[in-house]
Amino acid sequence: MKIDFPIILINFKAYYEAMGRRGLELAKIAEKVYKDYNVTIAVAPQYIDLSLIANEVEIPVFAQHVEAFDPGSHTGFITLEAIKEAGAIGTLLNHSEHRLRIDIIDDIVKKAKKVNITTVVCANTPEVSAAVAALNPDMIAIEPPELIGTGIPVSKAKPEVITRTIELVRKVNQKVVILTGAGITTGDDVVAALNLGTQGVLLASGVVKAKDRRKALENLVKAIRGRK
Amino acid sequence: MKIDFPIILINFKAYYEAMGRRGLELAKIAEKVYKDYNVTIAVAPQYIDLSLIANEVEIPVFAQHVEAFDPGSHTGFITLEAIKEAGAIGTLLNHSEHRLRIDIIDDIVKKAKKVNITTVVCANTPEVSAAVAALNPDMIAIEPPELIGTGIPVSKAKPEVITRTIELVRKVNQKVVILTGAGITTGDDVVAALNLGTQGVLLASGVVKAKDRRKALENLVKAIRGRK
Amino acid sequence: MKIDFPIILINFKAYYEAMGRRGLELAKIAEKVYKDYNVTIAVAPQYIDLSLIANEVEIPVFAQHVEAFDPGSHTGFITLEAIKEAGAIGTLLNHSEHRLRIDIIDDIVKKAKKVNITTVVCANTPEVSAAVAALNPDMIAIEPPELIGTGIPVSKAKPEVITRTIELVRKVNQKVVILTGAGITTGDDVVAALNLGTQGVLLASGVVKAKDRRKALENLVKAIRGRK
Amino acid sequence: MKIDFPIILINFKAYYEAMGRRGLELAKIAEKVYKDYNVTIAVAPQYIDLSLIANEVEIPVFAQHVEAFDPGSHTGFITLEAIKEAGAIGTLLNHSEHRLRIDIIDDIVKKAKKVNITTVVCANTPEVSAAVAALNPDMIAIEPPELIGTGIPVSKAKPEVITRTIELVRKVNQKVVILTGAGITTGDDVVAALNLGTQGVLLASGVVKAKDRRKALENLVKAIRGRK
Repeated sequence: MKIDFPIILINFKAYYEAMGRRGLELAKIAEKVYKDYNVTIAVAPQYIDLSLIANEVEIPVFAQHVEAFDPGSHTGFITLEAIKEAGAIGTLLNHSEHRLRIDIIDDIVKKAKKVNITTVVCANTPEVSAAVAALNPDMIAIEPPELIGTGIPVSKAKPEVITRTIELVRKVNQKVVILTGAGITTGDDVVAALNLGTQGVLLASGVVKAKDRRKALENLVKAIRGRK
Repeated sequence: MKIDFPIILINFKAYYEAMGRRGLELAKIAEKVYKDYNVTIAVAPQYIDLSLIANEVEIPVFAQHVEAFDPGSHTGFITLEAIKEAGAIGTLLNHSEHRLRIDIIDDIVKKAKKVNITTVVCANTPEVSAAVAALNPDMIAIEPPELIGTGIPVSKAKPEVITRTIELVRKVNQKVVILTGAGITTGDDVVAALNLGTQGVLLASGVVKAKDRRKALENLVKAIRGRK
Repeated sequence: MKIDFPIILINFKAYYEAMGRRGLELAKIAEKVYKDYNVTIAVAPQYIDLSLIANEVEIPVFAQHVEAFDPGSHTGFITLEAIKEAGAIGTLLNHSEHRLRIDIIDDIVKKAKKVNITTVVCANTPEVSAAVAALNPDMIAIEPPELIGTGIPVSKAKPEVITRTIELVRKVNQKVVILTGAGITTGDDVVAALNLGTQGVLLASGVVKAKDRRKALENLVKAIRGRK
Repeated sequence: MKIDFPIILINFKAYYEAMGRRGLELAKIAEKVYKDYNVTIAVAPQYIDLSLIANEVEIPVFAQHVEAFDPGSHTGFITLEAIKEAGAIGTLLNHSEHRLRIDIIDDIVKKAKKVNITTVVCANTPEVSAAVAALNPDMIAIEPPELIGTGIPVSKAKPEVITRTIELVRKVNQKVVILTGAGITTGDDVVAALNLGTQGVLLASGVVKAKDRRKALENLVKAIRGRK
């Protein structure tokens, strides 16, 4: 699946509001908003809901994490083959709530390329972003962990983190897509992230826990449309 | 869901043969054999297939692992609430391929009781089995890791491990159900496990990777029926 | 080395105040107070100071942690053989700041017996204490983690945790020594811990970070002497 | 301490042959060979022997691992402050036997700079080497894990791994020193490593487990001297 940018990537985390039936509803809202506004929206549901959601919606579906190893004797872990068969086109990796060893990220990214799964590797600092860039994932999401879930957007609170990330990443890797994460809630936040030079946002609570989730999403895509 | 013993609990692991459509097929075979022979068969599919399988079959469905924490900001992890909403009635824990900290097992077992999820905690030695018993899970599966996946049944190769486990566990906990794991493939293995005093078996490759999975399962339940 | 009870076991942690020369000073104070009052005091210095301290003082010296594996190809880890050769007579295990897998605790305790190293396994709840007891360590230290470092002694704030621990542990293991940890600072705290039926205390900041460390230790041992 | 290159860095691991008194002997041999041949030799003893060795020899002493956090409430872990106070001038990090999360490597490298500790970060592939280079450590040691401890030198068995590592690392970082690890035993191996463009070697069993350790080390430095 080819992905158009900018992208809004919604991490469902282990939120109650995005679990089971409620996760499917949210994915359908995302699909509807995408169809109405033609701005790419992708969702990263919990493993348990991934296959159902991937079957029911026509927007990109990501896993939240995946292991490097091949299918086999591994209990309670999910392989690249499993998420692919379930309909995912990509996966988050190294989220601040699920940090990984550097050699494991390398392993997963290499194997993901072989099975055609898009990798979005999270990073907490400009230096880690550059390190991740050297591993050649498809996308990097820079997320200062102290801002995650705060509603304080990194694009406003620490724009220098974004610009420094872009600077360091581009020395290492010209192609990797850079997303802005952490604290993104409003259309202004998204526009600020794009204006700083990133190609999308990774967010979670700002949409998942919004009172009106459709409206929250529409605010984001309208701001993007307005910017074009 | 009340579980009748003896039980045959099939761990699908991350096996290719038990992933996606093939996992659903296997679950349906298990259901059919259960209906034909009235011996309890439970399945522990991969997270990704759990919800679909739980919806499609009327036998007990277990997760392969679960976290202690509540729904919330956790990326790439699955909660007790999520597996319950997906239709699981229980979960494996501390499998040799997914060992856990002692305090975490305590946390999960306590929380599982509150949300009415049955816990099957694996243990590698009689002493660890007794330790697990002190945490009051619903079941313990004793599995010497050196025999897992070998086809050499612990009930034959090391029967003293089973009898010693029963002895130590019963000093600590009169109620917990004890299962035999590791190397179980044939009806003889199952009968040996029951004759040693355990109330069922936990197995994986013996059924999942069998050429004729229905026949493999039927051999197990026939041996149990023959024994009664 | 035979240990007389009650025991005061001081965990030096990675505190600046107990590092290097300052750790040696503290160990010498502990030795002096032991000689003056004849109440057992043991110290658990950082690895880096363990050998020097064990050579310089005649009180029991513990490691803060140790691995299960034999000497060999392991980088940045410390074996039982290494702490023994350095002069330690025992080791802490599973501290709330260094939790371990249940099978690993079993491995280390079994191996420690063979090489004659005394094991003190920490536990956060009465149930985990009983589980640990089933693994047959020499001592268990019950430490509700929410009280560690607070100066609020578990023996006063949650005496029922101690009595429940003793009750559950004794069902499983008659011999294991039980220590009280978490929040112990004053002589009263120690006496309360002993009166509840435990045979000593595990503490850290209450002594290590005291303005007058000799006085802090003397207060503890005087209270024990006064109680006899 | 200024380090001259090329360097031979000996990882003592948790080897029995390099523990306690035997570790000190090995460090003294290294010092003597250094003085006789004027080729830089550094040692990375076990934590437990670090302070004694650093006091007794006048060659660079490294830790085998260290944590990112400040001195404080951490049980069984060693801080940068502790190894510095003990006399270490640097530390290994991310050895194949002690892999680290990417964000943790970033944390430790940044903090090590502040306290003036030299960092040698191990890497298993050219890509991971480049990623590590983006974190700006002082040195990188490229060690294909399948060759560690084999006596098959990477510089001969997989020279393309070294040349590719240099190529990728230099795109990211012009300054970082690159060492060759894995399978280095003979003087030829060292010369091959230097001829490929790296500035030294990281080895362990080749020296630690040699029958005649002085001779083993002399063979390495003579080869370097002969090359100059």
